[in-house]
Amino acid sequence: VVNLTTPVPLDAGILAVLDLGGAFVFALSGALLATRKRFDIVGLVVLAELTAIGGGIMRDVVIGAVPPAALASASYVAIAFGAAVLTFFFHRPLEWLARPVLFFDAAGLALYCVAGTSKALAYGIGPLPAIALGVTTAVGGGVLRDLLAGETPTVLRRDSELYAVPAFVGALIVVATHSQHIYDAPAAGAAVGTAFGLRILALWRNWRAPAPRVRAGPEER
Amino acid sequence: VVNLTTPVPLDAGILAVLDLGGAFVFALSGALLATRKRFDIVGLVVLAELTAIGGGIMRDVVIGAVPPAALASASYVAIAFGAAVLTFFFHRPLEWLARPVLFFDAAGLALYCVAGTSKALAYGIGPLPAIALGVTTAVGGGVLRDLLAGETPTVLRRDSELYAVPAFVGALIVVATHSQHIYDAPAAGAAVGTAFGLRILALWRNWRAPAPRVRAGPEER
Amino acid sequence: VVNLTTPVPLDAGILAVLDLGGAFVFALSGALLATRKRFDIVGLVVLAELTAIGGGIMRDVVIGAVPPAALASASYVAIAFGAAVLTFFFHRPLEWLARPVLFFDAAGLALYCVAGTSKALAYGIGPLPAIALGVTTAVGGGVLRDLLAGETPTVLRRDSELYAVPAFVGALIVVATHSQHIYDAPAAGAAVGTAFGLRILALWRNWRAPAPRVRAGPEER
Repeated sequence: VVNLTTPVPLDAGILAVLDLGGAFVFALSGALLATRKRFDIVGLVVLAELTAIGGGIMRDVVIGAVPPAALASASYVAIAFGAAVLTFFFHRPLEWLARPVLFFDAAGLALYCVAGTSKALAYGIGPLPAIALGVTTAVGGGVLRDLLAGETPTVLRRDSELYAVPAFVGALIVVATHSQHIYDAPAAGAAVGTAFGLRILALWRNWRAPAPRVRAGPEER
Repeated sequence: VVNLTTPVPLDAGILAVLDLGGAFVFALSGALLATRKRFDIVGLVVLAELTAIGGGIMRDVVIGAVPPAALASASYVAIAFGAAVLTFFFHRPLEWLARPVLFFDAAGLALYCVAGTSKALAYGIGPLPAIALGVTTAVGGGVLRDLLAGETPTVLRRDSELYAVPAFVGALIVVATHSQHIYDAPAAGAAVGTAFGLRILALWRNWRAPAPRVRAGPEER
Repeated sequence: VVNLTTPVPLDAGILAVLDLGGAFVFALSGALLATRKRFDIVGLVVLAELTAIGGGIMRDVVIGAVPPAALASASYVAIAFGAAVLTFFFHRPLEWLARPVLFFDAAGLALYCVAGTSKALAYGIGPLPAIALGVTTAVGGGVLRDLLAGETPTVLRRDSELYAVPAFVGALIVVATHSQHIYDAPAAGAAVGTAFGLRILALWRNWRAPAPRVRAGPEER
């Protein structure tokens, strides 16, 4: 979730489409999980809203940008509400769209991490914490969604195809180019593109992040 | 949790009684859940405090009203602590009071949603996000309580008798009358009364919110 | 997590060592839990960061000290990242260090509760809420760690050897001496020492906090 006045050097029109598109797709993922969990319409709306705007609200609250961009305009709340209502009536065809949704989710992930890191830097946060906040923006909503639904957060699971890693790389590119004073529209575009491409590649090749070697044992679960 | 200086156009004395009463009853629900979960006195206090003041703190942090009203005076923390100690010694008779507690819980829900929406509007939040924050104020503490206790949040469950819906309706009345510049003490009272009445009706008639039609399957668990 | 400019009347050098040491040990506890849960390196980093800086960020956001001390310098994020990487390669010897880790965890608990209470008082929070925030600083990161890992939070469990109680006592000493205008370096040291000693004693003697008497029944599970 980005405020269009934040210094993300991208064409505002493109940015708005990607940003609201990301919110919509994140909201769909929340509403679909709520459906699988047999929650009612209230549960669908709550999970849709939290997934779409939770990460951005966390970032804005932490950097002192209150009220958060996601609540300063009605667009995000309305779009997530719409996604929940849509899922209520059409969850079966939407489940068939699982692959396209992953595509848009990758786009949302890529845009949110770049926008989140940019906004943190603009608020005077240092490079390393800015990366942490960029990743939080991208994955925070999904963590809230999974926590409330009683699932292990996707971002922590081994079979999540690197979920947080592309966000980390995108945030790293922003911070690196920013520190060299060469962070501009093409650099932001490159960061979004790299994060997006990496996520798509990881999904396609089924990549996994390394995990510590642990002997099988009673601790396993 | 309301600061008495917020522009909730209700008699301050009545408001304070309802507000602290709501905090007390929410705290009881937290401490009773902790007892059923076999937590110790520390767990009782933690769940009592979070249930009573968690929703209001979320709202205040998000709108930039820091320190939150719930921490600006000692009353809320003290009342929740008292509810935990009371539950520690008298949880068995308190369990017998389950029905009256639901009555007060409905009162807390109704007051918190109206007060939360009013405060959000007073801080310049737009109508739709103000409704979201009003509902968050009313149900946020309960969500924290359920998360920490390892339960599916009441607000998401089908058998919760509309829990969030009366809060939504109360918030909607506040926003609608506010947009027509007719939000005053009677309007606020009507919003509280409607939310309260709807919740009591839903409990009495065992109403449920609609849920998506899902075929039975492996996801059902 | 303390900002060295906060009015904690302790030698700044000693404080920094204890504070960063506390962050490191809390991060280790997060990364080790992630390893036992079979999370990948991303999960190790996320749990390490949240455990180390989550409690301090909660406190700072609530009192309006944004950006939080934990993000105003790179030290905390970097130290927690280092603890995660260390755990990735050396988790087996680190598991053998469980006892020493408990020793440092007690030190972190004691320092965080005193520093958190002091900072809350410095921001004009009243005595009772300041105690609540001091305890939150000390135990908040661990609660986030346990929630994300799908465990019952340590602080709520009966077999946690009083985990939150020493933090409460430390915070109480700070508030009591502060209210008598005798809060200075020795008083802060006494508070840290008392909290630390109480925690070590509780671990050694296997103390437990009292719990409500509940008859065995279907709720026990």
